[in-house]
Amino acid sequence: MKRIKVGILGATGAVGQRFVQLLENHPWFEVTALAASDNSAGRLYGKVVHWRISADVPAYARDMRVQPCTPDLDCDLVFSGLPADVAGPIEEQFAQAGYVVSSNARNHRFDTDVPLLVPEVNPHHLDILPVQRRNRGYGRGCIITNPNCSTIHLVLALKPLQDAFGLDKVLVTTMQALSGAGYPGVPSLDSLDNVIPFIGGEEEKVETEPLKIMGVLASDQIRPASFVISAHCNRVATIDGHLECVSVALTNRASLDEVRTVLASFAGLPQKLKLPMAPEHPVLVRQETDRPQPRLDRDSERGMATTVGRLRPCKVLDYRFVLLGHNTIRGAAGAAILNAELMYARGDLAQL
Amino acid sequence: MKRIKVGILGATGAVGQRFVQLLENHPWFEVTALAASDNSAGRLYGKVVHWRISADVPAYARDMRVQPCTPDLDCDLVFSGLPADVAGPIEEQFAQAGYVVSSNARNHRFDTDVPLLVPEVNPHHLDILPVQRRNRGYGRGCIITNPNCSTIHLVLALKPLQDAFGLDKVLVTTMQALSGAGYPGVPSLDSLDNVIPFIGGEEEKVETEPLKIMGVLASDQIRPASFVISAHCNRVATIDGHLECVSVALTNRASLDEVRTVLASFAGLPQKLKLPMAPEHPVLVRQETDRPQPRLDRDSERGMATTVGRLRPCKVLDYRFVLLGHNTIRGAAGAAILNAELMYARGDLAQL
Amino acid sequence: MKRIKVGILGATGAVGQRFVQLLENHPWFEVTALAASDNSAGRLYGKVVHWRISADVPAYARDMRVQPCTPDLDCDLVFSGLPADVAGPIEEQFAQAGYVVSSNARNHRFDTDVPLLVPEVNPHHLDILPVQRRNRGYGRGCIITNPNCSTIHLVLALKPLQDAFGLDKVLVTTMQALSGAGYPGVPSLDSLDNVIPFIGGEEEKVETEPLKIMGVLASDQIRPASFVISAHCNRVATIDGHLECVSVALTNRASLDEVRTVLASFAGLPQKLKLPMAPEHPVLVRQETDRPQPRLDRDSERGMATTVGRLRPCKVLDYRFVLLGHNTIRGAAGAAILNAELMYARGDLAQL
Amino acid sequence: MKRIKVGILGATGAVGQRFVQLLENHPWFEVTALAASDNSAGRLYGKVVHWRISADVPAYARDMRVQPCTPDLDCDLVFSGLPADVAGPIEEQFAQAGYVVSSNARNHRFDTDVPLLVPEVNPHHLDILPVQRRNRGYGRGCIITNPNCSTIHLVLALKPLQDAFGLDKVLVTTMQALSGAGYPGVPSLDSLDNVIPFIGGEEEKVETEPLKIMGVLASDQIRPASFVISAHCNRVATIDGHLECVSVALTNRASLDEVRTVLASFAGLPQKLKLPMAPEHPVLVRQETDRPQPRLDRDSERGMATTVGRLRPCKVLDYRFVLLGHNTIRGAAGAAILNAELMYARGDLAQL
Repeated sequence: MKRIKVGILGATGAVGQRFVQLLENHPWFEVTALAASDNSAGRLYGKVVHWRISADVPAYARDMRVQPCTPDLDCDLVFSGLPADVAGPIEEQFAQAGYVVSSNARNHRFDTDVPLLVPEVNPHHLDILPVQRRNRGYGRGCIITNPNCSTIHLVLALKPLQDAFGLDKVLVTTMQALSGAGYPGVPSLDSLDNVIPFIGGEEEKVETEPLKIMGVLASDQIRPASFVISAHCNRVATIDGHLECVSVALTNRASLDEVRTVLASFAGLPQKLKLPMAPEHPVLVRQETDRPQPRLDRDSERGMATTVGRLRPCKVLDYRFVLLGHNTIRGAAGAAILNAELMYARGDLAQL
Repeated sequence: MKRIKVGILGATGAVGQRFVQLLENHPWFEVTALAASDNSAGRLYGKVVHWRISADVPAYARDMRVQPCTPDLDCDLVFSGLPADVAGPIEEQFAQAGYVVSSNARNHRFDTDVPLLVPEVNPHHLDILPVQRRNRGYGRGCIITNPNCSTIHLVLALKPLQDAFGLDKVLVTTMQALSGAGYPGVPSLDSLDNVIPFIGGEEEKVETEPLKIMGVLASDQIRPASFVISAHCNRVATIDGHLECVSVALTNRASLDEVRTVLASFAGLPQKLKLPMAPEHPVLVRQETDRPQPRLDRDSERGMATTVGRLRPCKVLDYRFVLLGHNTIRGAAGAAILNAELMYARGDLAQL
Repeated sequence: MKRIKVGILGATGAVGQRFVQLLENHPWFEVTALAASDNSAGRLYGKVVHWRISADVPAYARDMRVQPCTPDLDCDLVFSGLPADVAGPIEEQFAQAGYVVSSNARNHRFDTDVPLLVPEVNPHHLDILPVQRRNRGYGRGCIITNPNCSTIHLVLALKPLQDAFGLDKVLVTTMQALSGAGYPGVPSLDSLDNVIPFIGGEEEKVETEPLKIMGVLASDQIRPASFVISAHCNRVATIDGHLECVSVALTNRASLDEVRTVLASFAGLPQKLKLPMAPEHPVLVRQETDRPQPRLDRDSERGMATTVGRLRPCKVLDYRFVLLGHNTIRGAAGAAILNAELMYARGDLAQL
Repeated sequence: MKRIKVGILGATGAVGQRFVQLLENHPWFEVTALAASDNSAGRLYGKVVHWRISADVPAYARDMRVQPCTPDLDCDLVFSGLPADVAGPIEEQFAQAGYVVSSNARNHRFDTDVPLLVPEVNPHHLDILPVQRRNRGYGRGCIITNPNCSTIHLVLALKPLQDAFGLDKVLVTTMQALSGAGYPGVPSLDSLDNVIPFIGGEEEKVETEPLKIMGVLASDQIRPASFVISAHCNRVATIDGHLECVSVALTNRASLDEVRTVLASFAGLPQKLKLPMAPEHPVLVRQETDRPQPRLDRDSERGMATTVGRLRPCKVLDYRFVLLGHNTIRGAAGAAILNAELMYARGDLAQL
């Protein structure tokens, strides 16, 4: 299979840096363009990026010249790590110009003709793309999106429950990592010896995005699922890894063992297709009393799995558990790459 | 009114240190005895304690000689900060010997004839003491207890709701401070850049203690309240201050404004009696979007109040909010002192 | 003695907030004006400040209306917590208009006719003020400054050594708290599980300011002291309290006991005059093997003392020790207030 | 070349876990025995270890049965991660029984016939082994040791300076990571919002070990180097990575450029022999103003390099710089493995 030339929009930002890192030596995608805001454009990536992931920028990217975010990049697909205040129109311009846009930004997630994709959960939502292209006259271009970092890990745990037992209610309290706020993000004086019990816009995303993702594609539109979600979102002093305490009410009765089995055996199309970024097990179920923990479990399956632990009955709803996932890998850049890999493997990129 | 001589059991431990600190210059109680385990006994308190609250041990305590925890201390009332593995029988020996025991330990909290006291919530549960004395032949001695640190703050917020609207269900997720685990407590390698989603025995306490506290004393016994509680308990990297995300289902309809008013106007007997440790407002309701926060709000009302914020409707139950309280002041030593002050002001210590 | 009306410039910033806090109920100074940048001016202080010290703004300041930083405030003395990029000319305008300016900003610290004051160390440097007024035509106005937060605590420990034994060389490595960088200051992603081995401009300040402070005022100018200082400055994850590892070479021989005695018995004019903000002991010497520690010792003497510990011989220079002081109290706002108190007690404010 | 069977003593401890991790898939060494204290012996490693490095124990070790630390293990070489209170005699028993012992414990570091080895610095100190064997009647067994975690990184930076310019004086202040204290190690209440300015025994090690390592082997003994070191050691809130602020006085004049060049071009026998654990560059010199930083730089060269930054003149000695290294990889387990690799490559293990 041929390699696809890809570009990264917002390459100097926190999510952009993860794209640069995760796409090093990718078997299908070759990074041929790095784009960022005008004050970075024209300079070498290694000089302009304030690299925060590890000691050094990957060698392949160091001497690439940053370009402006205009749709004349030498590539066929772009990964967008753009901030929400600029992502909307720029991503549309790229799609209009024929680029496939795999976006981590929230701007188009609720457009009725844009798939909000988690490949293990709703790969068939890609079938809305012909509608999108027809609606918008995009030609071979298109926009696909991945959900919010807290949502992705939540739906990976909810989907097997929905399929097996039906879902009625979900009450989730998150303890989210600092990297989710980008850089510079949360001031250290607000974070040290403290918890901030509020993240702007986050609760709304966690309460609505899963319903679209777990909804049904029918007659050219996605009908949201009908269960309800209540989310409390908190910012805690961890670098990476969102922890979520979840209580669920199921539609049908299920034993604790059945719930555990259904979670632990969950797999989807990415596992079947052996996509390069796909975790072998999208949901890891642990038996210890005190797991998952952010520092120990966030890198499981190279940051692409959701770890579930402490599964037990809930006195108010039916069952409760704790889940954890890496917020900037599976929760952001890794998710957008997996989405693109799904398109590639399905043949949706054959036209490029 | 005469001053009461008091002793502190477990005076060198984390809770014991708080007793020593909070009882400095107390208007009613004079510390005349410090007791601890055998390997401290006989030495000067200032030499033997590993003081962790501030730079220095209060001057009054520095040169007091630590005594063993045997019921021959020169005092009439003892505050017990003993660890649970030894508190049970020692506290009984003291009560048997005629001491009033105000305990922070969990051992006797569920004895049917022992009040589990939060003075704003169930001061009349003290009326079980004649039963206790009769049952146990305690003479003028007795045992009273305060709840777990997470429980106290939760019931301060639940009580006004129960009184005004009735309570059906409570789902709470806690983010608890490190000091709650005592010293040495949580290893730093488990806490830095991490959250531990489990605290041994804590969820059971939070799910059961409020039912006894908010229950009804009738015909010589306490009938527990009948609502249900589900608790997820987590340890986060804060020094002091337990944060709790709470969702509640009420028995009767109530508007958001009614709920807010009922919380903000809550007061009880300690406020009426102007007890020395009592907060002016046991529940502080804040309007900011991002409060309460541990580092900013834990010391409100000298650590004796519960701060409630982010009050809003819940999509799964009826309302949700965030609460915060100091876990070693109102949640431990301050609670036991307030309990003793209540007895003093009611005349329950007149026999001493 | 009459009360002086004082204003606070930069009242909404991190240092400004400390001024507001520390001046509550001050016996000599009454806050009659709060001034800040134009986008705060005209609004109530309690509404516009992002208060980060504790739960609530002191009651006296809450409903004061913030004014612009122009020299028409209803007061006679101003405390300046202005950032360095604007402090220079604004402070001069106030002095020109007849205000006494006690500044925490670095801008005028090295003006040859401006005292860089630590009241225990160089109170007589105030005698340069007539020169300043003559040079600048200030009338009754003037500018006095306090040093950098790391410098103040260092000179409190160095001064008794200089006086008793003479000083040749000082090598200091600092571990400075986050609050020293202001708010928002250091991003949490740079601080958690990390140390930043660089603070812009800090090493230069620590290497030069002590020489002016410990210099000699002679014939209308301050001749800097002649020893040398080398400083490594690091930012660590503490809220408040700068820790400094110091090695010194003395001019004359001294025994360890002599050094300890000289440090522990140090006192100056503020102690003699019993200034309201003055610590009883400006230098506290501790004997424990593992002290001072930021969280335990920073609040000693209400944040106004320097704590010295681990005094011992140095294999490369003569002696070494660890010191700690509160960086936003004694290291900033408290220092500027103590400076003004010194002027008040000396009669330097009698003309106001 | 044949593979060597190796065992790990103290395999369940913090350093032992690093041995287990780093020896997975080693090209020359095959782990055939895991040994630990008696209460672990007899159980499966995966069941008994409290694994703290990442989510899961390496697959190869999970089902190995832990054995007691007695010299009847099925292997020829043992890596010792034993704690100092038991390491001394156990290591001697193994050497006596014919095992090569590569130890991270401090017990034998100053035995006159035991090499204290840093392969880039003093590989020829291995030539003392015949003396050791003769002295102790060890047969083919022997003991080699690696230095303290702070020492190793310091000598990697000092050695090229000593060789090129001669060394007179070194003044170092360390900021050491929590993992250096083992597990449970430092209580979180001592670490959060705090620095501990003392680490028991550490300053003595840092002041003496480099002198043996950088000393001369002559006529069957190691004559220590003659420069002097003064060390201040602090514990800060980082997981891994010791940071050190170093000032040095050189014997001969050198320009800043010469110093930088000598550091950056340093290489030794491990690089020449391309030992599997050897970093390509043992000393990485960075030019940024604010590096090295623990979280960003500790994993450079798979944790086996020392990163030097902020090289500049010192006002008290000649030059100063900041260095950082991973304390449990290059500073402990990785060091002991590199030592064994050096022996293997030199042919010193041919007799096994």
